[in-house]
Amino acid sequence: MTRAITSTLLSPEEGGPVKRTVLPSGLRVLSQSVPGFRSVTFGVWVGVGSRDEPVKLSGATHFLEHLLFKGTERRDALEISASLDAVGGEMNAFTGKEYTCYYARVLDSDLPLAVDVICDMITSATLTQDDIESERDVIDEEIAMHADETSDHIHDLFAEQLWGQTPLGRSITGTPESVAALTPRQVRGWYRSRYLPENIVVSVAGNVEHTDVVRLVRKAFERHWVTTESEPTPVRRGSARRVPTYGGVQVHRRDVEQAHLVLGMPGLVRSDERRYAAGVLHGIVGGGMSSRLFQEVREKRGLAYSVFTFGSAYADSGMVGVYAGCLPKKAPEVLDVVRAELANIAKGNITPDELLRGKGQMRGSVVMGLEDTGAKMTRIAKAELVYGELPTVDQILARIDAVTLDDVSRLAADLYAGTPVLTVMGPFDNKSLFTV
Amino acid sequence: MTRAITSTLLSPEEGGPVKRTVLPSGLRVLSQSVPGFRSVTFGVWVGVGSRDEPVKLSGATHFLEHLLFKGTERRDALEISASLDAVGGEMNAFTGKEYTCYYARVLDSDLPLAVDVICDMITSATLTQDDIESERDVIDEEIAMHADETSDHIHDLFAEQLWGQTPLGRSITGTPESVAALTPRQVRGWYRSRYLPENIVVSVAGNVEHTDVVRLVRKAFERHWVTTESEPTPVRRGSARRVPTYGGVQVHRRDVEQAHLVLGMPGLVRSDERRYAAGVLHGIVGGGMSSRLFQEVREKRGLAYSVFTFGSAYADSGMVGVYAGCLPKKAPEVLDVVRAELANIAKGNITPDELLRGKGQMRGSVVMGLEDTGAKMTRIAKAELVYGELPTVDQILARIDAVTLDDVSRLAADLYAGTPVLTVMGPFDNKSLFTV
Repeated sequence: MTRAITSTLLSPEEGGPVKRTVLPSGLRVLSQSVPGFRSVTFGVWVGVGSRDEPVKLSGATHFLEHLLFKGTERRDALEISASLDAVGGEMNAFTGKEYTCYYARVLDSDLPLAVDVICDMITSATLTQDDIESERDVIDEEIAMHADETSDHIHDLFAEQLWGQTPLGRSITGTPESVAALTPRQVRGWYRSRYLPENIVVSVAGNVEHTDVVRLVRKAFERHWVTTESEPTPVRRGSARRVPTYGGVQVHRRDVEQAHLVLGMPGLVRSDERRYAAGVLHGIVGGGMSSRLFQEVREKRGLAYSVFTFGSAYADSGMVGVYAGCLPKKAPEVLDVVRAELANIAKGNITPDELLRGKGQMRGSVVMGLEDTGAKMTRIAKAELVYGELPTVDQILARIDAVTLDDVSRLAADLYAGTPVLTVMGPFDNKSLFTV
Repeated sequence: MTRAITSTLLSPEEGGPVKRTVLPSGLRVLSQSVPGFRSVTFGVWVGVGSRDEPVKLSGATHFLEHLLFKGTERRDALEISASLDAVGGEMNAFTGKEYTCYYARVLDSDLPLAVDVICDMITSATLTQDDIESERDVIDEEIAMHADETSDHIHDLFAEQLWGQTPLGRSITGTPESVAALTPRQVRGWYRSRYLPENIVVSVAGNVEHTDVVRLVRKAFERHWVTTESEPTPVRRGSARRVPTYGGVQVHRRDVEQAHLVLGMPGLVRSDERRYAAGVLHGIVGGGMSSRLFQEVREKRGLAYSVFTFGSAYADSGMVGVYAGCLPKKAPEVLDVVRAELANIAKGNITPDELLRGKGQMRGSVVMGLEDTGAKMTRIAKAELVYGELPTVDQILARIDAVTLDDVSRLAADLYAGTPVLTVMGPFDNKSLFTV
């Protein structure tokens, strides 16, 4: 492509117009102009995550995310962070299984600075041997920290158990051993092969004009890259077949006050039409204080402080589950109550009131979850990078409204019949306490 | 007072006008009308916190916060949570050392419902014996959960160590023993004596008009309460003397991957004029990625993933401190680096660039931290309930701009000369590793 191509994806009625430009390099720029804010959130989304790593590169994507903050040809680590701190901006990054995101929230007048700094990191990281060695220690610290955050860490252990030794099952950070084994050559190769313009989406929301954003991004990025012939598309991943999943029980012995339980099973893939029914089901079973599990486990029996359902969807696999944290002596009873309620729901025992509440909750989270510039930035970026569609809020609300009690019951029967995985963490010596 | 008295606290230029009405009962209603949002955040702030409890009522304030969700004369627990879940609202509450807050975020059209439900809880909780018994178990679960969240829990242990067996030192939740000892009679007495209109501030921000808010609040609250003669004011607490604080080292043995270190000392009281200099000092020493401690501990030496400064201010006491999480073997070195940097700063070794960054960070957090309705609601409520003043954003920015390098150095010298407290958690058998 030799020139930029711009289109309007959503009209101003959506709380500000959404526009998209494909630059000659294949880099995509999306923006939503939102009046009434003094801040702008600017994000760069790279279509690479831990699931893209061959096993010998396990942890390389997350390692790169750290290393980009260590220095570029024009800035050292202090200059990178100082530039945005000086204007009161926030800058951070995160790595997922299917993407890596760098973002900054700044006052609108500081957008040029944010674009310049993050672009510099994306295109011109130096990845020196010294930085790689010292940052390895920081990654070790981060892995140790996560291992201690037991109520979060149990979710990683559950995913590892469900997906086994597959790219989706491996931890995003890698292990201390896999990170120790990464050579500078491997890390630099991963950077060069994945941080390419056709694999990157730039997304901005706030008090900005699309033409200004495009001008800034072109100035910062395009001199690094040549033009491309192909129209960029959402990242394609996985095969037509679903990723294999595994069942069973694992008990992780830890000397802690609270036991953590996750009971789950395979869920929907991202594109599944039943995802709106799945959202409503989540609200009914474990989404809020009036949900079935909160009522049965906490309100009626006082068995746990925290109990909720969760789920994730990827290109070719997904998961759903229930988390509960409780005193160790109560774990078997909590599991009994959870299992009984899932069975009940799978049999279609859902009241019309519960359906209404489940739909109301989902509607509320859609409308109220989009009020800040970070959420708006994320929505349009994910639509471009992984979903391949950007429905309007009204379209989403209509799809939620269309969900019937029958849709939800049939989905529950389907999902809860999947091979169960039970992950337990706590001061348990007798593993036979727990079965699936 | 026999009639409501309304005044305008801030003009519309402040991102929407802030108005205040005192109702005949003494209840205060504050609102900020913010155009461009579809949501409203509604909060009820009660001027009672854990520091107001006599020792035999330790945990009663937080226990009440839970119990108000269990039932009222008109609604049981399910009806309370279901009402807002059905419209996609979020409702929650938290207890601090100096206040308790109940809040809901809803679409603007659902504000009447949110006011009705939360008012019902505030004025008409039933506090039955059954609910008190079953909720005691939930509190036990919550205390166990907090004990496992080691990187948070170390802050509670630090506060207990700094303030000792005083109301500010005791944990907000109480202990399982103190909660077990609370009788229904004590809990009900605490509710009746503290949940009084002159001790309550209602605060709303979002797409609302002040007159509508006042009408809704009067309808919901005022029939429960008689008129009062006195003009309500910020809660007065403490004596002219400062709360005593204690120094020393405590090592809490835990079988965890990461050691947690908090090194701190007494800080400023809430009304101290030097609080703006303290905010700038925080930015310089440990507020962001370009701060002195992040650079020295993480960037240059790779010793920790997380290292930052923090502080709290109360009516008659305050604290400042440094947190670091690191592999146990690195703890002594991390402490050495932290101490050397604090000493350096206290000697006035601060660069003009650092001062500019510290001020920039504080400016950014003031301006960008007020973009959602929850933050706006909280700002006007705290101004009314505990600060007794509501400066404009421009006034705050002017106070930050006025901070000089000399102000910051003198404050650092003052604070860091305070009696130090060191709280350590980790797999340490040899406590003599650590000294203050």
